[in-house]
Amino acid sequence: MTETAPRPTLEAVAARAGVSRATVSRVVNGGDGVREPLVERVRRAVEELGYVPNQAARSLVTKRHDAVAVVIAEPETRVFADPFFALQLRGISKELTAHDSQLVLLLTEGRADHARVGRYLAGGHVDGALVFSLHLDDPLPELVQRAGVPTVFGGRPGWGDGTGSAVYVDSDNRGGAREAVRHLVGLGRRRIAHITGALDQTSAVDRLDGFRDVMVDADPGLVVEGDFTPAGGERAMRELLGRCPDLDAVFAANDLSASGALRVLRDEGRRVPDDVAVIGFDDMLPVAEQTDPPLTTVRQDIEEMGRLMARLLLRGLDRRAEDPGVGGVPSSVVLPTTLVRRASA
Amino acid sequence: MTETAPRPTLEAVAARAGVSRATVSRVVNGGDGVREPLVERVRRAVEELGYVPNQAARSLVTKRHDAVAVVIAEPETRVFADPFFALQLRGISKELTAHDSQLVLLLTEGRADHARVGRYLAGGHVDGALVFSLHLDDPLPELVQRAGVPTVFGGRPGWGDGTGSAVYVDSDNRGGAREAVRHLVGLGRRRIAHITGALDQTSAVDRLDGFRDVMVDADPGLVVEGDFTPAGGERAMRELLGRCPDLDAVFAANDLSASGALRVLRDEGRRVPDDVAVIGFDDMLPVAEQTDPPLTTVRQDIEEMGRLMARLLLRGLDRRAEDPGVGGVPSSVVLPTTLVRRASA
Repeated sequence: MTETAPRPTLEAVAARAGVSRATVSRVVNGGDGVREPLVERVRRAVEELGYVPNQAARSLVTKRHDAVAVVIAEPETRVFADPFFALQLRGISKELTAHDSQLVLLLTEGRADHARVGRYLAGGHVDGALVFSLHLDDPLPELVQRAGVPTVFGGRPGWGDGTGSAVYVDSDNRGGAREAVRHLVGLGRRRIAHITGALDQTSAVDRLDGFRDVMVDADPGLVVEGDFTPAGGERAMRELLGRCPDLDAVFAANDLSASGALRVLRDEGRRVPDDVAVIGFDDMLPVAEQTDPPLTTVRQDIEEMGRLMARLLLRGLDRRAEDPGVGGVPSSVVLPTTLVRRASA
Repeated sequence: MTETAPRPTLEAVAARAGVSRATVSRVVNGGDGVREPLVERVRRAVEELGYVPNQAARSLVTKRHDAVAVVIAEPETRVFADPFFALQLRGISKELTAHDSQLVLLLTEGRADHARVGRYLAGGHVDGALVFSLHLDDPLPELVQRAGVPTVFGGRPGWGDGTGSAVYVDSDNRGGAREAVRHLVGLGRRRIAHITGALDQTSAVDRLDGFRDVMVDADPGLVVEGDFTPAGGERAMRELLGRCPDLDAVFAANDLSASGALRVLRDEGRRVPDDVAVIGFDDMLPVAEQTDPPLTTVRQDIEEMGRLMARLLLRGLDRRAEDPGVGGVPSSVVLPTTLVRRASA
């Protein structure tokens, strides 16, 4: 560890400025009631000594940390393997930086660590939290609520206690899925299969519902559960071909699983889109452009979702600061999706 | 934001347990001097009410947060684009989780945000910091020192004030580079070029020094600056071929830039290794195995470096807790490297 010089104290600043300890404290914490010449002297002493106020103490007074926690309910390996999270973080990072708020990403090895995340959130280290990729039965929503930090969710939480009034940013997953499947129907496809996402997440359930809205009498064998990963898409595609060798289209719950499905179709000698049309979800670049053939997909603006989550949270914090009694609760936002046509369908 | 139920207070716990506020405070903060039956009653009340101690207040007493900050001195876009960082974080995450310490990753848009990172570090939110990928003239080392948090660096800092006694974990960059270049010489190559890393980082400078140790009289035109990215490797390779069309080997400062160099060599019709032998640095998988041809490279154990950084920091914190007067300062560690032979050289 770095050998550190002793940190300048509040007392040292007071001595240097020739004022009382209480005066330094008031100036440092932005309090009023100190005459301008004294404020100037304290500020100069703070600068000369390189004094950094202890925010653990300071935050007890000011209650703002200028920091926002981001919690992704996935193991860190998944966070770095799936570009979805990098994109969402990019939007969050831009927005928080624009407001000079520090992005504090709390990484974990998995769900067993969520109690520790809850403790950190409750510990008075951040002004609020952005929580995304929640799974069914995850204790996080309750831990977050118990921690008492203002929170905006990425994706509709949809389960668990106390999330009934949760504020979230989501895409129109069900509507987007409907549009994808209708497009396949319009192409004359009749044996349309669906590779779902992880069904313990609302985004996967909503896309499955959208599929079913259009394929009301679909053969249940045409729906296979995936997990939003390329490997999951490969597994599901093999199972689908085994069950229903005559399928003529696949709607995959995201682009990564669609890329896995495309690999299996090629290995099995099925031409895309001639024999089997394929549609993904996300419009994740460069993935969706680099598949063979390039992927028709349902676009959602992932970076914008991140930006909006951060914006809603910061706006709520500002309102709360103005009116601590009630606190302004912003509304949830559901963003529209767009079908992007490339070669695969 | 989530509408939160009022958080149970210390007073509520005291009332429920039928003890004084001070007793609850002592139990919650792990203090001694409370009789066992009372401790039991307080614990039960804490559990029943779901009481979470306010750590901002608590940490003023206990001085431990069970959280460690990780600062990567790169914009977040780079953090998610270069698998080096994901690997180092994996090692850090495993080690911290094993000690139930929360990994707090502080992301930024760039160097302009480092003052804010310094404020967070100084704010009493973490027990220590792991800082890596430092660049020359970065204010971070000084900010970290001023923040007064125990710190272990990833890679030798090497510049700036106050880092003379810094504790760091590094690889033997210079020795590894020497071994790579000697291998090329052993293959009979004479016109050996070097694509450097970003020369405002010590790892790049050390690898260049290792190259020069062996190629004492090298044509200066055979050294071109890269930046550790595939695109930088492509640019540098094009420049090298323009300057020295007769080169017969390239040592690139990392695998990502080697992958860029390989693409340019293929585009220009040079056979690897017959016409030009190529060696990288890192043994970054799957990159090093998936290049065409697979890459001979200098292996460093990146995940282990992360694990060691975390271990050194935690050990130092424990020693400091035992003997707050002096604090145990662990020593820096430099890990050996190994040449891994594949098809490219």
